[in-house]
Amino acid sequence: MTGRRPSLAVVGATGAIGGVMLQILSQHADVWGEVRLIASPRTAGAELVVRGEATEVLALSEDVFDGVDVALFLVPDEVSAQWAPVAAAGGAVVVDDSAAFRLDDDVPLVVPEINPHAVRRRPRGIVASPNCTTLSLIVAVGALHAEFGLRELIVSSYQAVSGEGHDGVAALREQLALVAGTELGTRPGDVRRALGDGDKSPFAAPVALNVVPWAGTDAGGGWSSEELAIREECRKVLGMPDLKVTATCVYVPVVATHSMSVHARFENEVDVAKAHEVLATAPGVVLFDSPAAGDFPTPADVVGTDPTWVGRVRQSMDDPHAVEMFVCGDNLRKGAALNVAQIAESVAWEFTRT
Amino acid sequence: MTGRRPSLAVVGATGAIGGVMLQILSQHADVWGEVRLIASPRTAGAELVVRGEATEVLALSEDVFDGVDVALFLVPDEVSAQWAPVAAAGGAVVVDDSAAFRLDDDVPLVVPEINPHAVRRRPRGIVASPNCTTLSLIVAVGALHAEFGLRELIVSSYQAVSGEGHDGVAALREQLALVAGTELGTRPGDVRRALGDGDKSPFAAPVALNVVPWAGTDAGGGWSSEELAIREECRKVLGMPDLKVTATCVYVPVVATHSMSVHARFENEVDVAKAHEVLATAPGVVLFDSPAAGDFPTPADVVGTDPTWVGRVRQSMDDPHAVEMFVCGDNLRKGAALNVAQIAESVAWEFTRT
Ligand SMILES: NC(=O)c1ccc[n+]([C@@H]2O[C@H](COP(=O)([O-])OP(=O)(O)OC[C@H]3O[C@@H](n4cnc5c(N)ncnc54)[C@H](OP(=O)(O)O)[C@@H]3O)[C@@H](O)[C@H]2O)c1
Ligand SMILES: NC(=O)c1ccc[n+]([C@@H]2O[C@H](COP(=O)([O-])OP(=O)(O)OC[C@H]3O[C@@H](n4cnc5c(N)ncnc54)[C@H](OP(=O)(O)O)[C@@H]3O)[C@@H](O)[C@H]2O)c1
Repeated sequence: MTGRRPSLAVVGATGAIGGVMLQILSQHADVWGEVRLIASPRTAGAELVVRGEATEVLALSEDVFDGVDVALFLVPDEVSAQWAPVAAAGGAVVVDDSAAFRLDDDVPLVVPEINPHAVRRRPRGIVASPNCTTLSLIVAVGALHAEFGLRELIVSSYQAVSGEGHDGVAALREQLALVAGTELGTRPGDVRRALGDGDKSPFAAPVALNVVPWAGTDAGGGWSSEELAIREECRKVLGMPDLKVTATCVYVPVVATHSMSVHARFENEVDVAKAHEVLATAPGVVLFDSPAAGDFPTPADVVGTDPTWVGRVRQSMDDPHAVEMFVCGDNLRKGAALNVAQIAESVAWEFTRT
Repeated sequence: MTGRRPSLAVVGATGAIGGVMLQILSQHADVWGEVRLIASPRTAGAELVVRGEATEVLALSEDVFDGVDVALFLVPDEVSAQWAPVAAAGGAVVVDDSAAFRLDDDVPLVVPEINPHAVRRRPRGIVASPNCTTLSLIVAVGALHAEFGLRELIVSSYQAVSGEGHDGVAALREQLALVAGTELGTRPGDVRRALGDGDKSPFAAPVALNVVPWAGTDAGGGWSSEELAIREECRKVLGMPDLKVTATCVYVPVVATHSMSVHARFENEVDVAKAHEVLATAPGVVLFDSPAAGDFPTPADVVGTDPTWVGRVRQSMDDPHAVEMFVCGDNLRKGAALNVAQIAESVAWEFTRT
């Protein structure tokens, strides 16, 4: 490297995504100078290990961004909304993982396998990373789009509880401890009664021995915010403002890795052999598709890995332009920390080359 | 009643569906004379309670059908394939819950809310009840079809493990006991390692902390047998041999009640208010659709109840002829025992009226 190593701030280092980010920073080729870890005053003072060194967590404040070149925001929407502009005003390039700026016209929404160049035009000094559900889907869909010309997506999700961060994981583990070893699950209301009203759970219904078809907040017309996010984010990342996208978002009792059942319709005819060829060679995609032999992606196989896994690829029996497939991606890695790290590393090159 | 009470045989009385059937026989208005309980030689001799009376389980044999008017078959496909014709030859009307005869042109496939009259034409003396996944869907879809004219279904399932009977439930409970109280679910392969190779499980992958996108056997072209069953059974029950139907079947760690994310396209335009009206008044359907208030169906709420529950009804943003919805039905009740009981009760009337 000829230039200097940029300094990095990780805001939200103590969270679910933050923890994975520290692992990634310790594993990837190290392009960073100083790495500063930041969280709320609640956890400031704690020590976390990154790149093999115990590092003190600092409380979020204006000063904490002094001398920071790149700031990763892995915090709730409202914290990003308030503090990302502060970091950007201080000269840092912000890579934000929250929903606060994703649909802002002056903030690029970047998936490096699909629209890497978008990162360069960032009038607000902020780059956004998509929602974990969009990310678990878009790398595979983007590869097929480049070949066949995407026209419509109809997707149903099987979302992991870590999509709701540490609180989501804690709720599932607590509820599982209460239902394991019991005969619950076959009598009216027995799971609800055993789990109480789940006050501390971020989910709108029990998530152990259950599925919960509601993610995010009320977005009008019967849609949840997560469902509309998938629609708008797919359109923005692919640069197709009129793409047809319908999503149904459902939480399942899985810790990490989101799955999606995908119906994708294209301008051109698609046959499975050609779709296989495209997916098998696409960067960031693993094709795992021999179901009779047990080869299809599941969260248990995909968790902790970087790529988007695709299986169950089959041609629609009703439409030669459509394929069905089942897609899995680790929501904490490609769905969040990994995509943010990839974006940040592409920004880091701007410093090392100056 | 003016005629005589028909005698009934329950073959498979010791199974998952059999257990629910005994409850239903004890709860519904009693139209039966003698009730004979039948299973394999493995469990013959055991006593089970039906209509308040301890009743001995008999071993399946030709003689066991002597004097039986109606025989319910709640057993694996190959047992039905061999023995249902034997019972029919002896003069019994067979109501079969297996896949053995569902697509036989000389066997009606009956859902009493939709095609009640089909039960009368049964040249082989056998009436079939659909697969539990078809049943969790078709009552709601059939009601909308009658109003709007169905053209296409694209469905993704969230199937309960009891779809694989007692073995499926045992596998989930065993696996849950091994993962509850652990930190499993976030590291590559950790769930698979903890659960071993799951020799005794009917599922092709771990089902605790996981989802399994494969149900049934290899049906060619990448499809599973369950996915093609939904397609062909929906067509047969609705009497629409060319209906477009695409299914993706996925097991989830839920004990009982199948859920489906449904994209339904109709000949006529559909608005949500009108769809609500149709669903709210359809027999066998409960509309539960106020998601911002927490009102959407989940397995935990639906299990143990008779109807098909429908929520998350929303108009497609891309097609005024399409709606999305989330549907739940107890696979052991409407998905199996209840539908068989409803068919059998409609046959019983033929005896009581002679
Ligand atoms: N989980 C996913 O799958 C996923 C995927 C994509 C994007 N995201 C987004 O990533 C962000 C983080 O998610 P997560 O799952 O990691 O959540 P999390 O586990 O709840 O962690 C939240 C983090 O934000 C910090 N934080 C909260 N309030 C703060 C404040 N006022 N000032 C400074 N720091 C504060 C927390 O610090 P303390 O420990 O001090 O409270 C913690 O480090 C969210 O915007 C989320 O929507 C999540
Ligand atoms: N589970 C569902 O959601 C569902 C829904 C719709 C349809 N079905 C169908 O319903 C049938 C029963 O399913 P299940 O879930 O109740 O299965 P299960 O729990 O495994 O029970 C199987 C039943 O069949 C009996 N059986 C097995 N082999 C036999 C033989 N050779 N002779 C006599 N009886 C024999 C068993 O008796 P022993 O106890 O003596 O072994 C037991 O009573 C299957 O065809 C299934 O596909 C199931």
